[in-house]
Amino acid sequence: MTPFDELMAYQRETQALGQVMGRLGWDQETVMPRGAAPQRGEEMAALESVLHARRVDTRVSDWLDAIDHAALDDVGRAQIRHIRRSHDRARKVPASLATRIARVTSQAQGIWAEARANEDVAGFLPTLEEVIALKREEGQALAAGGDVYDAMLADYEPGTTGDEIAAMFGALRPELTALREAVRAANTPPQLSGTFDEAAQMRLTRKLAKAYGYDMAHGRVDKAVHPFSSGSGLDVRITTRTNPADPFNCFYSTIHEVGHGAYEQNIDRDYLLTPLGQGVSMGVHESQSRIYENQLGRSRAFTGWLFGEMRETFGDIGIADEDAFYACVNRVSDGHIRTEADELQYNLHVLLRFDLERALMAGDLDVGDLEAAWNDRFEADFGYGVDKPSNGLLQDVHWSVGLFGYFPTYTLGNVYAGCLFEAMRGALPNLDAQLAKGDLTAATRWLRETVQTHGGLYEPRDVIARARGAEPSEAPLLAYLKEKFTTIYGL
Amino acid sequence: MTPFDELMAYQRETQALGQVMGRLGWDQETVMPRGAAPQRGEEMAALESVLHARRVDTRVSDWLDAIDHAALDDVGRAQIRHIRRSHDRARKVPASLATRIARVTSQAQGIWAEARANEDVAGFLPTLEEVIALKREEGQALAAGGDVYDAMLADYEPGTTGDEIAAMFGALRPELTALREAVRAANTPPQLSGTFDEAAQMRLTRKLAKAYGYDMAHGRVDKAVHPFSSGSGLDVRITTRTNPADPFNCFYSTIHEVGHGAYEQNIDRDYLLTPLGQGVSMGVHESQSRIYENQLGRSRAFTGWLFGEMRETFGDIGIADEDAFYACVNRVSDGHIRTEADELQYNLHVLLRFDLERALMAGDLDVGDLEAAWNDRFEADFGYGVDKPSNGLLQDVHWSVGLFGYFPTYTLGNVYAGCLFEAMRGALPNLDAQLAKGDLTAATRWLRETVQTHGGLYEPRDVIARARGAEPSEAPLLAYLKEKFTTIYGL
Repeated sequence: MTPFDELMAYQRETQALGQVMGRLGWDQETVMPRGAAPQRGEEMAALESVLHARRVDTRVSDWLDAIDHAALDDVGRAQIRHIRRSHDRARKVPASLATRIARVTSQAQGIWAEARANEDVAGFLPTLEEVIALKREEGQALAAGGDVYDAMLADYEPGTTGDEIAAMFGALRPELTALREAVRAANTPPQLSGTFDEAAQMRLTRKLAKAYGYDMAHGRVDKAVHPFSSGSGLDVRITTRTNPADPFNCFYSTIHEVGHGAYEQNIDRDYLLTPLGQGVSMGVHESQSRIYENQLGRSRAFTGWLFGEMRETFGDIGIADEDAFYACVNRVSDGHIRTEADELQYNLHVLLRFDLERALMAGDLDVGDLEAAWNDRFEADFGYGVDKPSNGLLQDVHWSVGLFGYFPTYTLGNVYAGCLFEAMRGALPNLDAQLAKGDLTAATRWLRETVQTHGGLYEPRDVIARARGAEPSEAPLLAYLKEKFTTIYGL
Repeated sequence: MTPFDELMAYQRETQALGQVMGRLGWDQETVMPRGAAPQRGEEMAALESVLHARRVDTRVSDWLDAIDHAALDDVGRAQIRHIRRSHDRARKVPASLATRIARVTSQAQGIWAEARANEDVAGFLPTLEEVIALKREEGQALAAGGDVYDAMLADYEPGTTGDEIAAMFGALRPELTALREAVRAANTPPQLSGTFDEAAQMRLTRKLAKAYGYDMAHGRVDKAVHPFSSGSGLDVRITTRTNPADPFNCFYSTIHEVGHGAYEQNIDRDYLLTPLGQGVSMGVHESQSRIYENQLGRSRAFTGWLFGEMRETFGDIGIADEDAFYACVNRVSDGHIRTEADELQYNLHVLLRFDLERALMAGDLDVGDLEAAWNDRFEADFGYGVDKPSNGLLQDVHWSVGLFGYFPTYTLGNVYAGCLFEAMRGALPNLDAQLAKGDLTAATRWLRETVQTHGGLYEPRDVIARARGAEPSEAPLLAYLKEKFTTIYGL
């Protein structure tokens, strides 16, 4: 065996153990007995400690040094790029710091949940301050003299910088707030009414998952409190949820997670249990879930078909025709919660969080001033105020668990989805006619062949650039949103 | 930290990882997507390799040598006994041999399944011969000059020997065959008739599980092809199965697995994720599942209550009254398959396998003569012949996967259950009146306090001896079976 072969065999075991960790997470959220949590915590900690030891193992450095890089092909070089990145990252962070972060964030999540329940910002801020201090220390270790926030971004979206994102988001913000304002002044579309049987929702949601090409032989759909996708390769599971008053929550959660899941299922099987065998970044991942959910799933053509399916499943749903249904699916309403936001307002939530967390990390914003900064910014962008902390600063779990640099990948995913949809429309002239029949074969095949099959072979930006034939830009997303919402709202 | 503390902290992680392996096994048999099998194989192999490395780690030897044994209490000494046994065992078997056994048995299971489907003994024997040769090599490494079969037994029932078991089984055999013959000559009891809704079976089976004290906050009941119990401590899951024609299969599979599961759930929580935090041996484990299933679950008193439950659930079940129902539940019928055998004949199946596998390991029986030996013995003990290999030599998976020394623990469990039931009846004079109301509280509490709570604290024989107040013996089981079946069959 060459050093490359030895490293890849070692890495294959590491990837397999990483998949086991994913299975434990799925189990915890779906089927685990409620009293098992303390034991599960120890099981996951033990496995994490095995994984960490493998990532920092000095044999990895030795193999990396001994490999004849000139002899590698593109795939081999990409594998090494991922392994080196993960190994370097793990070795840069002192074990004692990693342990402190794990302990503090694990407690912080509970403190955040309690603070949110009690609308108690002051009860959360000291903990948040501690998390920020530790994450900044980690960021400095990772940045090694460079920009701390950029080092954090690299965990989720390697190859991009805070400045690049700020330029993109800066171009989006005035356009989105203007569009939002115009929509808010217009008449609002109808809403669904009635009660929607939850078992029937699950039947239709599984039909939607299959229509979108989700492979049930290598996955399954269950209910969980929060929808998520879990796993790579041959075992990729998704969850959704049901609410008798709101079947769209179930259907669009499912379609969103199918986007994530199909990405993982459709990666070239040659990359199974290797670093290339997973989605390449959070942003590219989100581009898949968002294009499935929004550009395809909330399109006029597809919602026309879905309207028929819903009437067949539930009878009269209180909506007169396809056009009214399309407007209803894409209804823009006032609201404070990011995860419940519509396609238009969603990005404004993300832009707000990006600017605030970047200022926090740069030391330009004190934790004590965070709530006021949040509330001012919210009112400026949304046109109305935050009524209570659980609708503002305390709504998201992310910061409490140390996720800084993660939020921007949500809007980056939307931007990428905009680029991909523009290219897809060019490549598939009959797309609308297919969507109107609920036929997503061509659309999902195009995504599989241009994006998903590559897994981690290319850098995130390059995946989108290759599919688009040009560098990623926010322009297609903006054009798409403007056209869509001016049409629906008759602006 | 003392060397003892360090060893226990290390061991705790090992136990946690062992639990993760159990979770993967459960997942595979209940919820895993069918196309995930190849990936799951790699995941389990990677985790097994981590576990093996931890078991043979030289630090364990160092800690064991450095511990001040005189300073340990009973619990500490028992922990060390288990750790040393597992460590010594792992180090005695060369890694190359362990790998060969894993590879050959993994293939052999498929070859066995195909041979069984095709009634092809000749197609299986060369593989069986290879498995036996490898297992004998392993046995010799473990025995280090001692008896090979005894060394194998120690994996499942430490502290016993083939000679001890042979003496016990030798006493059982003539009595069981005589009783079996007498029963066979008598009139047979009625059988259930009708179709039994499978969802209703699952509802009643969950009620039974709860009545037997199975803790749903730390477990769950699912369907699987083969009933099993999985996990220890705070997360102990069981499975059962349904067949519309045979609800007893569902109910008594559940009660059997509840016996295994309750044992694991009821171990002293101080032993959680330590070597003491698991059932102490296969035989003691089986004593719990069997006493739940047979001595309690198939008793006249309990079946009287179950008769009412079944009539309430399914309406008329074609059985006139409680006495007829009791006879029906305990019906003895001709049959070739161990796993479907009644309480009386079951042990004869085990005795046959024990004598044959011991002869195979001693080199006193050639694989080429195995089928004839099986068939001759079967006819001698059961009174009729084996009609096809899938009803004979090819019926069990055990030997193909290298399980030698495992079979006798089934009957050892019945013997132990006989001892425990005798003692329980002495301790609980109102037992029958409670069982007749479906109230198992006192019975399961007695088992929890005398057996289950101790986990691995005492050696297997000592667990039973302490509960019984005398050394284990086959006499109580024999007396119980004789009384039960002479009454039912009016002998």
